Amino acid sequence: MSDGRCIPAERLEAFTRDCLAAVGLPADDAATVAGLMSEADLNGSDGHGIFRLPQYVKRIQSGGINVTPSIGALRETAATALIDGDNAMGHLVMRRAANVAIEKARNCGVAWIGARNSNHAGPAALYAKMPLAHDMIGLYVAVGNANHLPPWGGIDMLLSTNPIAVAIPGRKHPPIVLDMATTVAAYGKVKTAAQRGETMPEGWMIDRLGRPLTDPKRADEGFLLPIGGPKGYGLALIFGLLAGTLNGAAFGKDVIDFNADSVTPTNTGQLIVAISIAAFADVEAFKSGVDAAIDAMHGSATLPGVDAVRVPGEHSHAIRAERQAGGIPVHPSLRAALVGLGGALGVALPA
Amino acid sequence: MSDGRCIPAERLEAFTRDCLAAVGLPADDAATVAGLMSEADLNGSDGHGIFRLPQYVKRIQSGGINVTPSIGALRETAATALIDGDNAMGHLVMRRAANVAIEKARNCGVAWIGARNSNHAGPAALYAKMPLAHDMIGLYVAVGNANHLPPWGGIDMLLSTNPIAVAIPGRKHPPIVLDMATTVAAYGKVKTAAQRGETMPEGWMIDRLGRPLTDPKRADEGFLLPIGGPKGYGLALIFGLLAGTLNGAAFGKDVIDFNADSVTPTNTGQLIVAISIAAFADVEAFKSGVDAAIDAMHGSATLPGVDAVRVPGEHSHAIRAERQAGGIPVHPSLRAALVGLGGALGVALPA
Repeated sequence: MSDGRCIPAERLEAFTRDCLAAVGLPADDAATVAGLMSEADLNGSDGHGIFRLPQYVKRIQSGGINVTPSIGALRETAATALIDGDNAMGHLVMRRAANVAIEKARNCGVAWIGARNSNHAGPAALYAKMPLAHDMIGLYVAVGNANHLPPWGGIDMLLSTNPIAVAIPGRKHPPIVLDMATTVAAYGKVKTAAQRGETMPEGWMIDRLGRPLTDPKRADEGFLLPIGGPKGYGLALIFGLLAGTLNGAAFGKDVIDFNADSVTPTNTGQLIVAISIAAFADVEAFKSGVDAAIDAMHGSATLPGVDAVRVPGEHSHAIRAERQAGGIPVHPSLRAALVGLGGALGVALPA
Repeated sequence: MSDGRCIPAERLEAFTRDCLAAVGLPADDAATVAGLMSEADLNGSDGHGIFRLPQYVKRIQSGGINVTPSIGALRETAATALIDGDNAMGHLVMRRAANVAIEKARNCGVAWIGARNSNHAGPAALYAKMPLAHDMIGLYVAVGNANHLPPWGGIDMLLSTNPIAVAIPGRKHPPIVLDMATTVAAYGKVKTAAQRGETMPEGWMIDRLGRPLTDPKRADEGFLLPIGGPKGYGLALIFGLLAGTLNGAAFGKDVIDFNADSVTPTNTGQLIVAISIAAFADVEAFKSGVDAAIDAMHGSATLPGVDAVRVPGEHSHAIRAERQAGGIPVHPSLRAALVGLGGALGVALPA
């Protein structure tokens, strides 16, 4: 991964920051968003970091993002808040929501913060992990920004991949971080495969007659499949109602395809829950219990052909170590897009 | 379903109540548990109602359940509590936990209540639905009472089916109620299939060499498959840590198989979250939004061969109407077990 195609994370982050500032994001906000996007790349969320920069820039230039938003609470109780994102970059809205969740959970043991008028915020794990530093468990749910999933048995694409992420700290082990779409594959993976000219495995998508669809360039002729059939559909529906409808954010027919439309506000809905470990357990004892669970999973005998059992987040953690040392791999097609973007904005892509 | 095999719900409930009282449950508690078990049967949760009575009675008679428990909070904050169930029937612990959740969510907007030293409590949906009457959304997670799921790629059965249920109210429509195991099939379905002499579809279980296992009587030679492969494994792990480890309840290697062992306390862990709709939205507007989402799903065009799109809970709701009118179907093998149980306890099975 550390061949000539890689760019050091901090240089890529600076490029992102300068591009976002060039299209009007205030310096602090540009730095915050660039930092979170760099985190996404370091963690191996290839569909959610620098990959999204051209799209974000286009949306900002098209007036589809408010670069001088007033983010604030519309409703508030002791342990909840409804945040209005004022059509800001989603990263800024959810960082704010996470901070509010942490503050309220400190007082109440748990806090549930919803957001409306937000936007795509990158990988769910980023926000689920924010409470960890405060000895809290984090949980994040979002309404996806394009509908690629029909209800089970249906063919009208009324649902998005509506992801969930949960982060739980260990003591000696890195945290367990589950970050999953409710579909077999996230649509970001389809986009990445298309850009790289790869074929998708069967089971990711089917066409409108139910036949497997494996060419990611034909993705608009079919739809994603939910995990566990009706169960994944149920999760996508429930998560959409909780992160979307409950917050007065878009869900179902009201979700615009932000890949095709860079102007209309997405009214993205997200939610974050922070759970104070101390409200339920001795913090260090709990973390040791998580370690024990991780050790038990690692110790499992394996099926023929499987080298080792892993826990969620472990692969990402390994990628992070590799990329901090060797930089972020940038596929040639993405590199070309970034060079073009930088040229137009007067920002040079670093080597 | 209303043929000779059916017994009216209220008669079956009285039989259950009298059997539980005969083995020492106080009258009020016997009535509460019987009522919740009857609800399970009415809602079509065939693996979680009267089907479980012989097992519950055996556990009570074996001293594996405390029939005179002191259920109470070990830790408490404004929006959280950790309930010690004192090895009571799980139904009693979770009804208490739900009431505490509703009370705290009324004040704080949201509440998260964990339980330890609880027991099998029937279907998850029962408890997720309890906040609905208070204009709240309910969410319930439990550690299952036997490990039938290995970590992804492994063969050591370190995990249970760890279910989740979420209930969201509609206005004109019945609530959406998702109640799902994190495995393709719940183990209760395997037990029901075994009792009925049925074959399981491929995809429910595999053996230790990875081959499909379809004979439910051979269930102990293999294990359940998680939904979405590593994703379902991740959910089962996370739910186990949240409902088990965080509450000081059993998880992983500490989970006993309550089908094989009726004596050792299970130390079952569960959690319930109540979310006050008013903390985020106008209640009636939200319910209308849920209706609109249901209508949109129902309105979807369908794949070839599919008659209609449904939402989670809809099938259960239809079964309930049927069973309230026509009674609860009791399979001959279950009927024989109940006649034997009643005979031993001096309680006649009604017609």
